Amino acid sequence: MLKLAYLGPEGTFAEEALRILAPEAERLPSANVSAALDAARRGEADGAVVPLENSIEGGIATTLDELARSEPLLITAELLLPVEFSLLARPGKEIGDIKRVISHPAALTQCRGYIARELPDAVAVSAPSTAGAAQEVALPGSPYDAAIAARIAGEHYGLVELAGGIGDRSDTVTRFVRLSRPAPPPAPTGSDRTSLVAFLSDDHPGALLEMLTEFSMRGVNLTRIESRPTGDGIGRYFFHFDFEGHIADARVGEAVSGLHRVCEGVRFLGSYPRADGLAPQIRRGTADADFDEASGWLARIRGGQV
Amino acid sequence: MLKLAYLGPEGTFAEEALRILAPEAERLPSANVSAALDAARRGEADGAVVPLENSIEGGIATTLDELARSEPLLITAELLLPVEFSLLARPGKEIGDIKRVISHPAALTQCRGYIARELPDAVAVSAPSTAGAAQEVALPGSPYDAAIAARIAGEHYGLVELAGGIGDRSDTVTRFVRLSRPAPPPAPTGSDRTSLVAFLSDDHPGALLEMLTEFSMRGVNLTRIESRPTGDGIGRYFFHFDFEGHIADARVGEAVSGLHRVCEGVRFLGSYPRADGLAPQIRRGTADADFDEASGWLARIRGGQV
Amino acid sequence: MLKLAYLGPEGTFAEEALRILAPEAERLPSANVSAALDAARRGEADGAVVPLENSIEGGIATTLDELARSEPLLITAELLLPVEFSLLARPGKEIGDIKRVISHPAALTQCRGYIARELPDAVAVSAPSTAGAAQEVALPGSPYDAAIAARIAGEHYGLVELAGGIGDRSDTVTRFVRLSRPAPPPAPTGSDRTSLVAFLSDDHPGALLEMLTEFSMRGVNLTRIESRPTGDGIGRYFFHFDFEGHIADARVGEAVSGLHRVCEGVRFLGSYPRADGLAPQIRRGTADADFDEASGWLARIRGGQV
Amino acid sequence: MLKLAYLGPEGTFAEEALRILAPEAERLPSANVSAALDAARRGEADGAVVPLENSIEGGIATTLDELARSEPLLITAELLLPVEFSLLARPGKEIGDIKRVISHPAALTQCRGYIARELPDAVAVSAPSTAGAAQEVALPGSPYDAAIAARIAGEHYGLVELAGGIGDRSDTVTRFVRLSRPAPPPAPTGSDRTSLVAFLSDDHPGALLEMLTEFSMRGVNLTRIESRPTGDGIGRYFFHFDFEGHIADARVGEAVSGLHRVCEGVRFLGSYPRADGLAPQIRRGTADADFDEASGWLARIRGGQV
Repeated sequence: MLKLAYLGPEGTFAEEALRILAPEAERLPSANVSAALDAARRGEADGAVVPLENSIEGGIATTLDELARSEPLLITAELLLPVEFSLLARPGKEIGDIKRVISHPAALTQCRGYIARELPDAVAVSAPSTAGAAQEVALPGSPYDAAIAARIAGEHYGLVELAGGIGDRSDTVTRFVRLSRPAPPPAPTGSDRTSLVAFLSDDHPGALLEMLTEFSMRGVNLTRIESRPTGDGIGRYFFHFDFEGHIADARVGEAVSGLHRVCEGVRFLGSYPRADGLAPQIRRGTADADFDEASGWLARIRGGQV
Repeated sequence: MLKLAYLGPEGTFAEEALRILAPEAERLPSANVSAALDAARRGEADGAVVPLENSIEGGIATTLDELARSEPLLITAELLLPVEFSLLARPGKEIGDIKRVISHPAALTQCRGYIARELPDAVAVSAPSTAGAAQEVALPGSPYDAAIAARIAGEHYGLVELAGGIGDRSDTVTRFVRLSRPAPPPAPTGSDRTSLVAFLSDDHPGALLEMLTEFSMRGVNLTRIESRPTGDGIGRYFFHFDFEGHIADARVGEAVSGLHRVCEGVRFLGSYPRADGLAPQIRRGTADADFDEASGWLARIRGGQV
Repeated sequence: MLKLAYLGPEGTFAEEALRILAPEAERLPSANVSAALDAARRGEADGAVVPLENSIEGGIATTLDELARSEPLLITAELLLPVEFSLLARPGKEIGDIKRVISHPAALTQCRGYIARELPDAVAVSAPSTAGAAQEVALPGSPYDAAIAARIAGEHYGLVELAGGIGDRSDTVTRFVRLSRPAPPPAPTGSDRTSLVAFLSDDHPGALLEMLTEFSMRGVNLTRIESRPTGDGIGRYFFHFDFEGHIADARVGEAVSGLHRVCEGVRFLGSYPRADGLAPQIRRGTADADFDEASGWLARIRGGQV
Repeated sequence: MLKLAYLGPEGTFAEEALRILAPEAERLPSANVSAALDAARRGEADGAVVPLENSIEGGIATTLDELARSEPLLITAELLLPVEFSLLARPGKEIGDIKRVISHPAALTQCRGYIARELPDAVAVSAPSTAGAAQEVALPGSPYDAAIAARIAGEHYGLVELAGGIGDRSDTVTRFVRLSRPAPPPAPTGSDRTSLVAFLSDDHPGALLEMLTEFSMRGVNLTRIESRPTGDGIGRYFFHFDFEGHIADARVGEAVSGLHRVCEGVRFLGSYPRADGLAPQIRRGTADADFDEASGWLARIRGGQV
């Protein structure tokens, strides 16, 4: 039976994502993103489900850096999960009783409006995860009165939902990815995304422009770019790119090869179906058939047939 | 007397940065980055000192988002502060006694090697700041045995340094900025940096390439680019740019005006002396004198003198 | 009374062009393009009308080189003149009598099909201009039986049109320009063209790409680019550019100033109404109002108002 | 025995070029460039030698248009021939006797200074070629007193050189090319040039920029670009490109394939050793080995090996 690690404990949004991405899979909660990925790397799980970015918080640094630097894993699926926060308390508590509320700092930030309005006197305390906060509140004798977490966290830990949808924005989304040990990517579907990391060979002015041109010249549209520090002092960065298309596509293959030639290093992070189902606009001259035709033509002119 | 807010409590790296940037200033510790900036905005302080990015962790999301979206403040100075972590405990404790260590999650991450090697059995707990961790440890009856924080945090709270320089990398640096309410920027020094935020008018493919070309065409070298989510769902980003030169420079002015014309919005974040003292290579044809000369020539040909 | 020199003798297409461009003007035929331009330069005429390019032959090298290198003149108007060739002979001659036909080499080339079909045995001889050929044929005792020239050449020299519209293509067009001594250009009409010549500062790879980017960045569309040798050996070229818009337009002014900054030299050749009456598509952010707005914004942020 | 057609008659610069390019070849003089090319196409000759461009006059329009549009021929060699003009007369004539001088118009233009200075009263008459002018002068009873042509034209036609090196510039050069019927190109030498013609798929703004980017992205430096009218009215052009490298080079192959994909049509005109012997600077990441390595890497990541 398929077993997937995820950012635990039980009741996290990652668990929700895993249940949607792989309903039949056995679930292995991990203490943090690194632990989930390590479980996949070491074979304790067949893969892992972790957050990659959030529409409010941005990229999840640990995930980005793990994918870029540690032993390789490949993204094989993605999911856009709406993030809905609930205020969860032990049975019997009411909103007026809440003096100390605990959650992950990002959740506290995203519910700042609700807290200021409905819990103006409550102290907000940080926890390592929203589910962990719920778990903490559920402990007998916990000093915390309520947690802000996903509703399923409440179900897991026997808490009552005092209020739902308490985020300041109703449209917050987290993008989760499923990761597997290296293997041939899933077949192209016509609506795919490819991810990679590129390290600059040197930080000359224009290096980023050069990289973007490798994509734009082949009609490959970027869907996300994120810089991350290399760690070697301020002012040295590498880049995460997500873009339309599949590594099997000729235009993607040529663009990615071009990056590989001009960069110090490129790490492929996978090609996988897009969660939004969008198909790319394929620009004139950049379809696979165009590359095939051009390739045949080049062979002919190299042979003197013009 | 000049008063500056900073990311407190006393003993943070931000305090160290503030002491270097403005040794004479009165210091106002704030609970978090937003509070420090608000103090500056409301006039409770004359400005604020907060972290902008770290060579391991990357951009400080709260600072980036506050500067982009909340009431404007301008960067008037920057500082690159080497980050050295110490293991701090109450007097009388020894390393062998440490069972529970507390710090900011970023500090725990950056000292992962030391902890695994020297404190293999200790439990690591998260605190909202490194100085807050030290403060916590200093409390009588604290359940925590040691904090990982800056040495000055130990001095503030009466802790003993059991070990110093315990970060996994010895060259970690945090870039701090001093922010002030809007006012004319400091005069150009010949070694300046300018920061701004640009919102795309639409997310067409090539929009980022266009923005970068506005800079490169005028010989303005980027020193940092960071994407941040707009908040409106996954796939919508805005960009922080840092680049060489001063807004008073002709080439910078024209590039920034170009961005302003093609973007939905551009927010200027300030021009200020570079902490590293580097002077830009000014490309042929892009010095102020070249712009002046071209401007005179244009006026002449418009008037029919050729 | 306005006097304009033109590429003579009487009966050239240039005369036709001049009659359309300035019906009231006194006409001064000149021996060649250089002579017509010199007449304008020296004040013997108020201007000159000469061909700039032809839809079959391409650029008229003498005109291009004169405008680029000799004492400056400015283009103040352009005309697209359909080129229709007639076979012209002395009265009494018939097609069967034509043994020797004379014309300008370009006209002979453009009527190659007709000559091969209708005058298969005739010898074709070169003349310095089509009108000169007609003049020659009109001389008593001329060894030539017919000229290929504009119909008006026949009228001038008393020749009979044996056949009309004998060019191999019916849609051939020559672009004529009216040149004047330097003076403020005609006011913008909303459908204008601007011409200039740019000399590269050095022939580094990418210099042309840089020049084109100066235009494209400001949304200025090129309508023609032509390279010409600098004369300093094979492999050294300068460039003629025609593009949409008027030098008074902000986007044109900035693009042209940019060229001036990065090139060894730029010579402005004039802004004038387009013969085809087309108005440019003004790209988002590049209208005069956008430049004005950006300029005001820049002044404000330089002053600290953000 | 190898037979090559050339732009005749005997005594032209083209004959000089042919003698250098193929000393052993039988020479077939042709009436004009088109005739020389046709001789090669029809097999009457094994190839042809014709001028492609001149450092004063620019591109030779007939050659450019024939190569672009008529039945294909490939350039297999090039030669840069210094152009030295001599004043040639029948034996017994002296400079003071010269009243009528005949030559090709380009030669008359290039000797304008000499003629004005030494032959101020002479009438200058056009001939279809410099050698043809010499041939004409040699005819008994010719109305012309002298020709301006290559010295070898004088030797051919029994004329005396009254003056040598009479061009206004001493460094004028004509680039000749040897053309052959389509066949595999000569092997790469490390100092090669490639020529082609590209027709735009549509005349959208930026199409030329796109084409240049196909080259620049692969580190392929252009050595010449020339626009020519398509014939379909003013404002429609196609482009001749000469650039560094051989069609067998990976970077050239990919650039040329890219052009082929985005253009309406591309005609390969040959890869051949450079006359100047210059070797290209091969930019980082664009050598054949870099392309091979990238290609292997792409195959691996497509197969899931990362």
